[in-house]
Amino acid sequence: MADTEDVCAPASLAEPLRVPHKSLMGAGPSNAPPRVMHAGSLPLLGHMYPETFQVMDDIKDGLRYVFQTKNPVTLCLSCAGHGGMEAALANILEPGDTAVICKNSFWFDRASYMAERQGARVVAAEAPLGQPLSLEAAEEAVAKHRPRLLFLVHGDTSAGVQQPLEGFGAMCHKYGTLLVVDTVASLGGAPLYTDRWELDVVYSGSQKVFNAPPGLSPITFSPRAMKRVLSRKQPCSVYFYDILKVGEYWGCFDKPRSYHHTCPVTLFYALREALALVAEEGLTASWRRHQLAAQRLHDGLERLGLRLLVEKPEHRLATVTAVLVPDNVDWTAVTRTAMARHGTEISGGLGPTLGKVVRVGLMGVNATPRFVDRVLGVLEDAIRNPMPKSSL
Amino acid sequence: MADTEDVCAPASLAEPLRVPHKSLMGAGPSNAPPRVMHAGSLPLLGHMYPETFQVMDDIKDGLRYVFQTKNPVTLCLSCAGHGGMEAALANILEPGDTAVICKNSFWFDRASYMAERQGARVVAAEAPLGQPLSLEAAEEAVAKHRPRLLFLVHGDTSAGVQQPLEGFGAMCHKYGTLLVVDTVASLGGAPLYTDRWELDVVYSGSQKVFNAPPGLSPITFSPRAMKRVLSRKQPCSVYFYDILKVGEYWGCFDKPRSYHHTCPVTLFYALREALALVAEEGLTASWRRHQLAAQRLHDGLERLGLRLLVEKPEHRLATVTAVLVPDNVDWTAVTRTAMARHGTEISGGLGPTLGKVVRVGLMGVNATPRFVDRVLGVLEDAIRNPMPKSSL
Repeated sequence: MADTEDVCAPASLAEPLRVPHKSLMGAGPSNAPPRVMHAGSLPLLGHMYPETFQVMDDIKDGLRYVFQTKNPVTLCLSCAGHGGMEAALANILEPGDTAVICKNSFWFDRASYMAERQGARVVAAEAPLGQPLSLEAAEEAVAKHRPRLLFLVHGDTSAGVQQPLEGFGAMCHKYGTLLVVDTVASLGGAPLYTDRWELDVVYSGSQKVFNAPPGLSPITFSPRAMKRVLSRKQPCSVYFYDILKVGEYWGCFDKPRSYHHTCPVTLFYALREALALVAEEGLTASWRRHQLAAQRLHDGLERLGLRLLVEKPEHRLATVTAVLVPDNVDWTAVTRTAMARHGTEISGGLGPTLGKVVRVGLMGVNATPRFVDRVLGVLEDAIRNPMPKSSL
Repeated sequence: MADTEDVCAPASLAEPLRVPHKSLMGAGPSNAPPRVMHAGSLPLLGHMYPETFQVMDDIKDGLRYVFQTKNPVTLCLSCAGHGGMEAALANILEPGDTAVICKNSFWFDRASYMAERQGARVVAAEAPLGQPLSLEAAEEAVAKHRPRLLFLVHGDTSAGVQQPLEGFGAMCHKYGTLLVVDTVASLGGAPLYTDRWELDVVYSGSQKVFNAPPGLSPITFSPRAMKRVLSRKQPCSVYFYDILKVGEYWGCFDKPRSYHHTCPVTLFYALREALALVAEEGLTASWRRHQLAAQRLHDGLERLGLRLLVEKPEHRLATVTAVLVPDNVDWTAVTRTAMARHGTEISGGLGPTLGKVVRVGLMGVNATPRFVDRVLGVLEDAIRNPMPKSSL
C-alpha cells in the first residue's frame, strides 16, 4: 500500500522556477541588497543553537537602535507585519476592553477587525483622508472613552500620511491608556523615538525600509506595556503571539531561554545584516536620506503637474507618496505600463484611496536620487504613453 | 531634533555575521540542499504579483501531492509549525467545544494549551510513552465525549513514535468529530493519505523532510472541515490564521485573490523547489528511502548495544529515532561531544523524554546510508569518548 500514489506528482513542478528581477517602488516590499540576500542563503542552524542566539541578540541590539529604545522586551515576531499588528493588540486587549483606533486609512479596518476578534469594543477616532489625527482629537476620544489603548499608524501606506507622535504618549498616560503604534512602513525612514515619545507597543516589518525579505515583524514593549501584560486576567489568547513566551525564547527576561517555535533562521540572518547596514549608515543619516529623496520626488511630481494626496508637506510620509491620479488618466494603465514596459512596481491605491491615487515607495536602498529620477521618468512615461490593456 | 540619537548604534552589529556549517541530525530543522537555498536568495517580488501567484499555485500543487489530497483548501501558512498547530485548532474550535487530544508526548502540552486559549475543554486520551494511541482507546474517548475534534500527532518527535492513522478518520466521522493531524516531522518521510484516511485538517512544517528553511506551515482542510469553518458562530479569533481569509489570498475559493498579508516570498521560492525535488524523486520513493535509512540506523544502534525507546518496530517513526541513554552515560556529554567534535546535532529528549533519550533525525537529504553510517560513528564516539564539560 505504501507504494501507491492516489494523487500524482504535478506537472507544474517539473517547470523551472521563474523569478524575474523587478524594481519594487510601490508601497512595499522593497528591493533587497546582495549582502542581505546572501546572508539569507547561509546554512541552516537549529533554533536552540548558541550561534542562533547570537544572531538573535544582534537583532535585539539593532532593533533597540532603530526603535530608539532601551526596552528589554524588544524582539522580532516570526510573522508578517499583519501578525505584528495582531500580536500588539492581542497582548494588550482582553474581552470587554475598549480600543480607540485612528480612522483615516485602510489600517483602521484591519486593526479594528483584529481588536474585535479579541473581544474588545472599538471606537473610531476619525481624521479626514490624507491628514493625521490631531493631538486634540485624540485626547478628546481618550478622555471620553478611557480606552485600554490608542492605536495609531506612524507611516500610513494607503494615503502616504505621517502621523505625528510627539505628545501622544504623555497624553495617553494621563488617562491610563497605552499607545500602540504601527511603524511597518516608516521605521528607519522617518524619525521615531520610542522612549522619548513614551510609545508603549511599537511594531514594524522587515521588508520595507530595511530591505530584508518579508516574514518578520520587529516589536517592542515598554515597561508600562509589560505591566499591563503581566496584569491580564487571562493569558494572551494566541500562543504564537504571547510576548511572555516569545520573549522567553528571545532571552528578554531573567530566565533561561525556552523552545517557543522553530524560528525562521534564514530570515533572521538577513534581518541581522539589514540592521547592520542601518547601523553602518547611521539612523539619523538614513532618516535624512529618506527625507531628501522624498523631497526630490515631490518636487519632480510638481514639475510634472501632478498633485499629492497629502497637502501639507509636514504630514507627508517620506517612504510612500500617494500621487493623485489626474481625471483623464486610468490608474490601472499607469501601474500596468510601469510594470510591463519598465519592470517597475508603482502601486495603485489601497482601501479608501483605491482608484484615487498611485503610490510610489522610496525605501532603504531605493531612496536615492538615482532611483527617484528613474521612477519619475517611469511615471511620466506611463501617464503620457499608457499601454492599452490588449497589448499586454 | 531629528539629528540626535538617544540610543547609539550597537557595537555587536559591527562584527561580521558568523554562521558555521553544521550537520543537522537532530529532531529538526534538517540541512537544506543548494538548489533550495539558492531559490531562497532569488529577487524579491511583491505579494500580489502574478509571478508570486504562480509560485503559490505550484506550492499548492506540490502540497496536494505530498498530503495526497484533492482538497481545494491546501496552502501554506506564513508561520512556524507551531502556528500551523494553533491555526488548525483555532479554525475548528469555538468556546465551549471539546477537544480530545492524544497524550503520549510533548505535543499534548502545546496543543492543549492552544485549544484552551480558544475556550475549548480539553480531554486527554492517554497512551504510554513510546506507544501510539490505539483505535479502540481513541474511539472510547470520542464516543464518550463527542468532541469537536480529535488531535493526533502522526510523527511524534519527542518519543519517535509513528501514530497509525488508518481507520481513525472513519471512526471520528461516525461521531461527528473532525480528525486533526500534526505531520510536521513525518510528511514526505512516511506514508500519509489525507483523502484515503479521511483526515480533516493536516498541517506540517517546511524545515523537516522537505529540507527547506523554517518559517512555513503547509496545511490542508477537508470539505468536512471547511463545512465546520463555514458554520462557526463567530469568525476565527485570529485574523492571521483565518483560513477563509488566507485561503482567499491563496486563490482557494471562487473569488478574486485579496491582500491578506505580505507573504514571505523567499521562503515560498525555497519551498517550491523543495517540493519539486520530492516530485522528481517521487513521494513513495521518498517514503521508502526514509524507511530504509531508519532500518539501517536501528540495526546499527542494535549492533552498538543501544536500545530504542519505541519497542515495536511498526510504531517507530522513520524520521526521528529516540535512543535510550544507557545508565552510565551522561546524555548532555553525548550531544555536546557530537556538536563540538563532529559539528553534528544529535538532540536531547523533549518534554517527557528529557534525560531519557537522545534523538537522531534522518530527514530528506540526510536520510541516506552515508549519513546513517556517519551519525552512527558520531554517536559511538560521543558515548565512548565523551568530552568533559570543561574542555569546551
